[in-house]
Amino acid sequence: MNVSIVGATGYGGLELIRLLKNHPNMKIASLHTSSKFDRKISDEHTHLLHEDFVLEDINPEKIADTSDIVFLATPSGVSAELVSDFSKLNVKVIDLSGDLRLKTPGEYEKWYKKTAAPQKVIDSAVYGLSEWNANQIKEANIIANPGCYPTAVLLGLAPLFSEGLAKDVIIDAKSGVSGAGKSPSEMTHFSDMNENFKIYKVHEHQHIPEIEQQLSTWQQNMQPITFTTHLVPMTRGIMATMYVQVNKRFSTQELYDLYQTIYESHPFVRIQRVGQFPVTKQVYGSNFCDIGMAYDERTGKVTIVSVIDNLVKGAAGQAIQNANIMMGLDETAGLSTIPIYP
Amino acid sequence: MNVSIVGATGYGGLELIRLLKNHPNMKIASLHTSSKFDRKISDEHTHLLHEDFVLEDINPEKIADTSDIVFLATPSGVSAELVSDFSKLNVKVIDLSGDLRLKTPGEYEKWYKKTAAPQKVIDSAVYGLSEWNANQIKEANIIANPGCYPTAVLLGLAPLFSEGLAKDVIIDAKSGVSGAGKSPSEMTHFSDMNENFKIYKVHEHQHIPEIEQQLSTWQQNMQPITFTTHLVPMTRGIMATMYVQVNKRFSTQELYDLYQTIYESHPFVRIQRVGQFPVTKQVYGSNFCDIGMAYDERTGKVTIVSVIDNLVKGAAGQAIQNANIMMGLDETAGLSTIPIYP
Amino acid sequence: MNVSIVGATGYGGLELIRLLKNHPNMKIASLHTSSKFDRKISDEHTHLLHEDFVLEDINPEKIADTSDIVFLATPSGVSAELVSDFSKLNVKVIDLSGDLRLKTPGEYEKWYKKTAAPQKVIDSAVYGLSEWNANQIKEANIIANPGCYPTAVLLGLAPLFSEGLAKDVIIDAKSGVSGAGKSPSEMTHFSDMNENFKIYKVHEHQHIPEIEQQLSTWQQNMQPITFTTHLVPMTRGIMATMYVQVNKRFSTQELYDLYQTIYESHPFVRIQRVGQFPVTKQVYGSNFCDIGMAYDERTGKVTIVSVIDNLVKGAAGQAIQNANIMMGLDETAGLSTIPIYP
Amino acid sequence: MNVSIVGATGYGGLELIRLLKNHPNMKIASLHTSSKFDRKISDEHTHLLHEDFVLEDINPEKIADTSDIVFLATPSGVSAELVSDFSKLNVKVIDLSGDLRLKTPGEYEKWYKKTAAPQKVIDSAVYGLSEWNANQIKEANIIANPGCYPTAVLLGLAPLFSEGLAKDVIIDAKSGVSGAGKSPSEMTHFSDMNENFKIYKVHEHQHIPEIEQQLSTWQQNMQPITFTTHLVPMTRGIMATMYVQVNKRFSTQELYDLYQTIYESHPFVRIQRVGQFPVTKQVYGSNFCDIGMAYDERTGKVTIVSVIDNLVKGAAGQAIQNANIMMGLDETAGLSTIPIYP
Repeated sequence: MNVSIVGATGYGGLELIRLLKNHPNMKIASLHTSSKFDRKISDEHTHLLHEDFVLEDINPEKIADTSDIVFLATPSGVSAELVSDFSKLNVKVIDLSGDLRLKTPGEYEKWYKKTAAPQKVIDSAVYGLSEWNANQIKEANIIANPGCYPTAVLLGLAPLFSEGLAKDVIIDAKSGVSGAGKSPSEMTHFSDMNENFKIYKVHEHQHIPEIEQQLSTWQQNMQPITFTTHLVPMTRGIMATMYVQVNKRFSTQELYDLYQTIYESHPFVRIQRVGQFPVTKQVYGSNFCDIGMAYDERTGKVTIVSVIDNLVKGAAGQAIQNANIMMGLDETAGLSTIPIYP
Repeated sequence: MNVSIVGATGYGGLELIRLLKNHPNMKIASLHTSSKFDRKISDEHTHLLHEDFVLEDINPEKIADTSDIVFLATPSGVSAELVSDFSKLNVKVIDLSGDLRLKTPGEYEKWYKKTAAPQKVIDSAVYGLSEWNANQIKEANIIANPGCYPTAVLLGLAPLFSEGLAKDVIIDAKSGVSGAGKSPSEMTHFSDMNENFKIYKVHEHQHIPEIEQQLSTWQQNMQPITFTTHLVPMTRGIMATMYVQVNKRFSTQELYDLYQTIYESHPFVRIQRVGQFPVTKQVYGSNFCDIGMAYDERTGKVTIVSVIDNLVKGAAGQAIQNANIMMGLDETAGLSTIPIYP
Repeated sequence: MNVSIVGATGYGGLELIRLLKNHPNMKIASLHTSSKFDRKISDEHTHLLHEDFVLEDINPEKIADTSDIVFLATPSGVSAELVSDFSKLNVKVIDLSGDLRLKTPGEYEKWYKKTAAPQKVIDSAVYGLSEWNANQIKEANIIANPGCYPTAVLLGLAPLFSEGLAKDVIIDAKSGVSGAGKSPSEMTHFSDMNENFKIYKVHEHQHIPEIEQQLSTWQQNMQPITFTTHLVPMTRGIMATMYVQVNKRFSTQELYDLYQTIYESHPFVRIQRVGQFPVTKQVYGSNFCDIGMAYDERTGKVTIVSVIDNLVKGAAGQAIQNANIMMGLDETAGLSTIPIYP
Repeated sequence: MNVSIVGATGYGGLELIRLLKNHPNMKIASLHTSSKFDRKISDEHTHLLHEDFVLEDINPEKIADTSDIVFLATPSGVSAELVSDFSKLNVKVIDLSGDLRLKTPGEYEKWYKKTAAPQKVIDSAVYGLSEWNANQIKEANIIANPGCYPTAVLLGLAPLFSEGLAKDVIIDAKSGVSGAGKSPSEMTHFSDMNENFKIYKVHEHQHIPEIEQQLSTWQQNMQPITFTTHLVPMTRGIMATMYVQVNKRFSTQELYDLYQTIYESHPFVRIQRVGQFPVTKQVYGSNFCDIGMAYDERTGKVTIVSVIDNLVKGAAGQAIQNANIMMGLDETAGLSTIPIYP
């Protein structure tokens, strides 16, 4: 199977290259960017020395001719247009941007402050939350790959919401700095970010409607969520700490039983042992989402902790997982690695 | 004025030495430890080269003879006993440990799993939240210096609670690793902690009763708080992100007006401009507590963000601020420095 | 092919587990430690959740029965004894410690301050510098796997020394903190090591004789080297910056031609483009050694820069590379991954 | 005494503001930038909240009217022009850029690739290596404040060179990332720089001629130096590890005696105890330069290790020290602080 990557030199694109290197069924046919084409990718990305890819410009027809799947690792705003082009061609598309995730163009424009993709294209895209939407993913031609925060949050909340147990949710999310992308900025300047902990986009993050849209498919009467995001002085990793008002009493053990049962057939979701909570490093470089939880007798609330590698399960890894599902391969093909530790 | 430090070689003690170096009215008379005495402190703590202090053992009578104030930068469990000794002597005591903070010995024993100080000693101690308890601090002989998390949390919540506006609170707190102290451990081993983000003591942190005790002095009918703590891969700094269900509608501007009014006479609490949230680095090495906030129209909740340097405002700095207040000095004496940036 | 790991819970052992997970020809038969056996390795090492290994005690006969190769990821001093046991059994041994590297027991005892392995065992061990000793490695039953610093240094210096071009060498080496192992210590305590840069073991590092021993096989009349080691506040990675007085004039291009020619058939050594120098991150998590160099017209000296991941090419990766060579497999089996970036 | 800062919003300028805050004899009259004037400095630099400085444009006459000293914390290329303006006015100038350090304009243009200041201005500037040039500094009107690397290097090498003992020198220097300034770039992007160690400007750093110029005032027949620079994933701190071929045999104790004698009257140079080497963190935020050394019996070479905080002793701190000397104040005024630890 041949795949191509558009936006190959961003962090999402580079991570796809890394993961696809050892995929037993997929081979990179070509890499594309909107600039710097005709250069070797290893010229600027020296970790890719000895990988002899030459960057090419973005020609949808040509890509569709040579590839079974195209990954769009392009920024929001760019994907919308590209997907329209690719949707008319004989190639499956996995879009890592936010452009196809929100079903209502108005919501997209409100939160992203950009022009939405055509409704028809949006309608044809399946939200690629692999563990929960596999049946639709199998039939899809276009996947809207979930955002990094939504992946950690939704996998952590799904059991409670799908059982109709949640009332009110507060999500305090923390991310490594690679989530902010590859372009230098004051926010991500080393001397400013190092030995610092930042909060940003309070109540304004564009992942809020994405999370609420999916939660409401499980539990229609849900309340708006409170969602804040923070930058941690590290490169990779997301932790979402989630506080859920539930509509029944639990024991912590009952919580674990619920989660274990739901996720036992899903190889990439690992439930911690009771009393143990995950740290971001235990999933570093891997496609795992690890979850721990506790019921607080004092307050009657449940605390859920979910961690992922934002560039793997939160981007390139889940994209490949979705590609595997679409193509009828084993879901774990190319992804069964052990996290890097320490 | 002469001061002594017991527990001089821990992070709290070392920070007291640093801050007192330039105090215009206080001079270090002697440094004390339970081990390693008769050695120069600079032998192992090379940042103190050229500071010629010799460590001494802990002799309360002798300390009381030479000192007007003694700072106990000793671990919980140790202070309880020492304070009893000092309380009979003519010296003012500022205890940086958790031993005198909880007014109910049973609560102390439940959360600290150690023997509480005698009730009489506990009763004689004033909780040293400088901005809110200055009148009592002025009259006190013994100060229970607040914990690092409670300082950030209480300064951030006080305006809402003192006005009776808060209903339900969730506190997601993050700390630099120096909060875990100076003893090496697996938790704080560099290769494990670096490029990692951890959650710990979920629902079990001993600062929970300290926070609730103080909040309930402002608002008696308060509900139990939800409080979680995280370790950030950095050395110094605490951020508390707090989600408060309030019993009236606000605008964000009204919130700011409330906070500005309450804190305008307090030099160490700095309210951010509307729309801006503090980062931990902006208080690095200083005694400031910086606070930002927003009212979320979608959820009706208020998000409060409070940052401190855990070793300064969260420990040694507030201890000196309390000493200044006790001794009738300017509250800012020795503490009016600009944070280190970057 | 079945392999076992002794010392499975140290950083070297954990890295072997990670790398062997995807080895096409090797399968882990069992994991061994001197303590904590009968526990699941994932209990304390949560990145290994879902890997169901139970730790076993160290029984050489049993290991030799079930395994074709045993990796000793044990500390110096422990390996010496274990190798003696294994050397009588029908199993190939790859020792990651320093115990079998020095051919003269007296040198070992002088630098390691421990009892050396028996001369007979030392004599039977081949120094596993994969790129330079492959012929001997193929025939060996016991491999002394090179140290992390020596690997970076020797691969960087080999072309000059093997051509007899070097006169005087100064090596300034820098390592991530994982090189100091998994046991917590003051040196590796996060709050002390973070935002710090340290020099240690000046003129005293036990890798000095290892480097000199190998260099002198290439150039007998060599002078003693100057070698210093530093700790960088990061987890993985070694950079050796090497200053070589050479006995002829060069152009930088001639240097590159020399290195390119020598290493072009070696897949794990990547020579940078002229004018570019490697950074440690470009080999993160991989078995590559990347090398850049320049001839300084002003001084007539050559500067060589060599980087590796200390836990992969500097330990577990090179061990597997040696195992591949010993067993007649493709040298890159299980190791052809792309470095993690960013 | 009134002082002004031109280039107040760079790292050098911000550090001057921090240090001058507590200077007993100097007061900031005004802050100047080439852009963003008429804004409050605390708008973008929130660590300065409560410091009510409004940024002004650069008007030399006005500055000279109100100030006794002007600090130029401007980039190389900008200072050259400004100094010419100020040199005609009645104000003392301390230039933190590299523009006035090299006595030969041709050398400046070769290494900086910019137009040099007029020879007359260059001639009037005194090189402000405080510990060695105090007599000239006292008489000067214009100070060329030394570079960060040269400060660490020269203080470390001065005793050997001033005694005529050195033959050949190799300097391996490492710096925290703040040395690269405040402008975001790919080199200093957090996700690229974190968990990375880089070498840069090999054999090409503009500090090479500055170091050689000063060394040759001590020892005229010196050879060209080898000098490489590295970036450490930390914000502040420089370590220079220096390897010196000496023209006599030493004991390590003799080395220490030499250094102790030379520096005992200099409060900011602290010589380590024999056998101990400094780490960068022990001078964090302070004006100290700490030095350790060892004679290597095996090679006959001396290893010197020198650490500073690049923004203090390597920039703003030494600038204030020079201002103190120029104005006849105690050299330590405003600078006698204890380093921040941890």
